[in-house]
Amino acid sequence: MSGKGAPAPESAVTRLSHYLRRLEQLRAARVVKISSRRLGEAVGCTGAQVRKDLARFGQFGRPGIGYPVDELAAALRRILGTHHRWNTALVGVGNLGSALVRYEGFKRRGFVISCAFDRDPERIGIHVGSLAVRDVSTFGQVVRENRIRLGIIAVGAGEAQEVADMMTAAGIEGILNFAPVEINVPEGVTSYTVDLAVSLERITYRLVHRDEEKRGTPSPAP
Amino acid sequence: MSGKGAPAPESAVTRLSHYLRRLEQLRAARVVKISSRRLGEAVGCTGAQVRKDLARFGQFGRPGIGYPVDELAAALRRILGTHHRWNTALVGVGNLGSALVRYEGFKRRGFVISCAFDRDPERIGIHVGSLAVRDVSTFGQVVRENRIRLGIIAVGAGEAQEVADMMTAAGIEGILNFAPVEINVPEGVTSYTVDLAVSLERITYRLVHRDEEKRGTPSPAP
Repeated sequence: MSGKGAPAPESAVTRLSHYLRRLEQLRAARVVKISSRRLGEAVGCTGAQVRKDLARFGQFGRPGIGYPVDELAAALRRILGTHHRWNTALVGVGNLGSALVRYEGFKRRGFVISCAFDRDPERIGIHVGSLAVRDVSTFGQVVRENRIRLGIIAVGAGEAQEVADMMTAAGIEGILNFAPVEINVPEGVTSYTVDLAVSLERITYRLVHRDEEKRGTPSPAP
Repeated sequence: MSGKGAPAPESAVTRLSHYLRRLEQLRAARVVKISSRRLGEAVGCTGAQVRKDLARFGQFGRPGIGYPVDELAAALRRILGTHHRWNTALVGVGNLGSALVRYEGFKRRGFVISCAFDRDPERIGIHVGSLAVRDVSTFGQVVRENRIRLGIIAVGAGEAQEVADMMTAAGIEGILNFAPVEINVPEGVTSYTVDLAVSLERITYRLVHRDEEKRGTPSPAP
């Protein structure tokens, strides 16, 4: 279904995630059909963009009738790979790592942090939720035994590359990096660095835009 | 500069953030010019998209010569509002809130969490970094006295709406919500809910795509 040719660009994949979120809300509200225009509105893009994004993966819905909510949601889960559970290995059980282990937003999408590692002897053995923190020296063994493909880096910037190297050596194929530094991974491994400031910039852009609308001129620094 | 007409769509604003990240890396590497094509490549979009996004805000660069790295970075910071410091108020100093207070990725972009609040008496008064946790009952007063416009919600899903209401009542204009639940805010307030699972889906999409390429067929659930 998504296996033909080059992978879709990241921006399109991100929109698929947002379409899926919206479809799940609609499903909960017992809505059975939705038009591309209204699905786009909910996500902040045009109906044409929705149709183009979906056409990349197959034929969904019918002109004038719209998309069947249930079917399209199932198809998107399959395209994004979230139609099944993904066991995930996390390294770095500080404040952020602990919060991620408990984050409901992962579990709900099928992402289960099934093991967590640290190198700090004071953290090894403690429980975060129902998970006992393991010694990072056992990472490769645990990951291979459990055939884990996804890793999350929640260590500081200074250790992130070292952890990424350890993960790829252990066979991890996809890495979500929360350290505020870019990591290098070998060909064939997918990594993504989360930059939380990007979300705040979406908000400050709006605030600055509104300020300028009120003043009628570009804003000086306050 | 960005004050004319309707605000840019969120997807375009997010791309501006990514262009800015790339420009700052180039600047650190002492690169002075970049073409739209190469700037796009670094971000995963076309040169045409870069030119279209930037043309929305003014005239930058010259055909055949490219964009001046320094100037364009300064212009993007001004458009995104990150040419000055934003004091930010955080509510909920659990694991996630503590991690956000310490997050280097905010400070580097000019976002400073200048006050943090909780309602748990056991947390009030403790220090996270150099910040003493305040009683949430003082939120409105502190925010007004310090003219804080940005708020971060780091409480659980069950309390998020209540905190959002408190924030908007205190005059907060932009809210970044980390609780895995949508919040409602009045007209004129901008909110954005962070969904960390979207980042993992970008990765699993790639993994599933590669699996299918190898097999030559769509993948069944494992």
